[in-house]
Amino acid sequence: MKIAVLGTGMVGRTIAGRLDELGHEVVIGTRDPEATRARDDAPTLPLAAVPDAVADAEVVVNATNGTASIAMLSLAGAELLAGKVLLDIANPLDFSNGFPPTLLVKDTDSLGEQVQRAFPDARVVKSLNTLTADLMVRPDLLPEGTSVFVSGDDASAKATVTALLEEFGHTDVIDLGDITTARGTEMMLPVWLRLMGALGTANFNFKIVR
Amino acid sequence: MKIAVLGTGMVGRTIAGRLDELGHEVVIGTRDPEATRARDDAPTLPLAAVPDAVADAEVVVNATNGTASIAMLSLAGAELLAGKVLLDIANPLDFSNGFPPTLLVKDTDSLGEQVQRAFPDARVVKSLNTLTADLMVRPDLLPEGTSVFVSGDDASAKATVTALLEEFGHTDVIDLGDITTARGTEMMLPVWLRLMGALGTANFNFKIVR
Repeated sequence: MKIAVLGTGMVGRTIAGRLDELGHEVVIGTRDPEATRARDDAPTLPLAAVPDAVADAEVVVNATNGTASIAMLSLAGAELLAGKVLLDIANPLDFSNGFPPTLLVKDTDSLGEQVQRAFPDARVVKSLNTLTADLMVRPDLLPEGTSVFVSGDDASAKATVTALLEEFGHTDVIDLGDITTARGTEMMLPVWLRLMGALGTANFNFKIVR
Repeated sequence: MKIAVLGTGMVGRTIAGRLDELGHEVVIGTRDPEATRARDDAPTLPLAAVPDAVADAEVVVNATNGTASIAMLSLAGAELLAGKVLLDIANPLDFSNGFPPTLLVKDTDSLGEQVQRAFPDARVVKSLNTLTADLMVRPDLLPEGTSVFVSGDDASAKATVTALLEEFGHTDVIDLGDITTARGTEMMLPVWLRLMGALGTANFNFKIVR
């Protein structure tokens, strides 16, 4: 599958690397490919400017910082994103008052919904925003199966994302409902951050036992 | 142990019944014991007005509605609550705009902290607010062990609550830290509510796999 990953931070690199390993045709979209290539830690996968990365992609992964997501996606624009599956992994974390961060949007709205409203013809699916990057793509690193969630208005887009999650190794993908249910998973971040502190590791995940 | 349970709703009745079954000396504190006794579904356990219920208790359980918690606890007052372990199970849910409810307080404050500030010498421990009443007291009804959390400023109060949770059957009690970490567990309610919708049952719980 042709997949554009936006974001060159830990999440974007981890997702892109794993998708490549699984045989997908991956391009990393960045604001300035020349500057990214010049970095010491430049990704080895193909790099392109955001519109070029997005143009041919069937799936676009938003792995940017939550505060920059709308701006980065706007570099592609609503027309280029129309019809595409947009997997939104970002969380609207606000670190401006220190650690732990608070949420810039919550409870009556979510970043997932903001992205869907900004790009109304994209088929936004919120997922993978509730666990650390390494476990997003290799859940088998944990001693037992855990749960991930999908939220979105488009059933076939959720099916596409669910299939990718299963390729990563996820065995319990829970469909929470429409994109407004992203409020639920984004609001898991405050307890996730405190669990990371209490457990002394980011290598944990939620399993919904029922 | 002498335990006062405040609240005659499902959570209060379930907690009180289970504590009685485990051999604790339980009294249910209610605003108006006569009116509660006259109800068709009156509890069979001893009933008392809130100050009488609290006076002799070593542990006070706040199982009231989150919107009524401070008012109910105020019937006992800061002096009577001083020094006591106050297990706060309530969530600050606001149903005024329909379902799913939103949170009256979140992210930069929590009901747990509001209770601690209102009754500064009580030893508040937030716990059990992340699962349904039946599973709070009988986690073995699920097919495998799950996790619950404690948040509070007083280590010995958390130890007392943890011992009670273990009597209920909990095998993974995670100490998140001070009472501000109640922000994390109270903010799990939005995803809990959506999981209940998606799964069609309240009989599930979070397990932190690590």
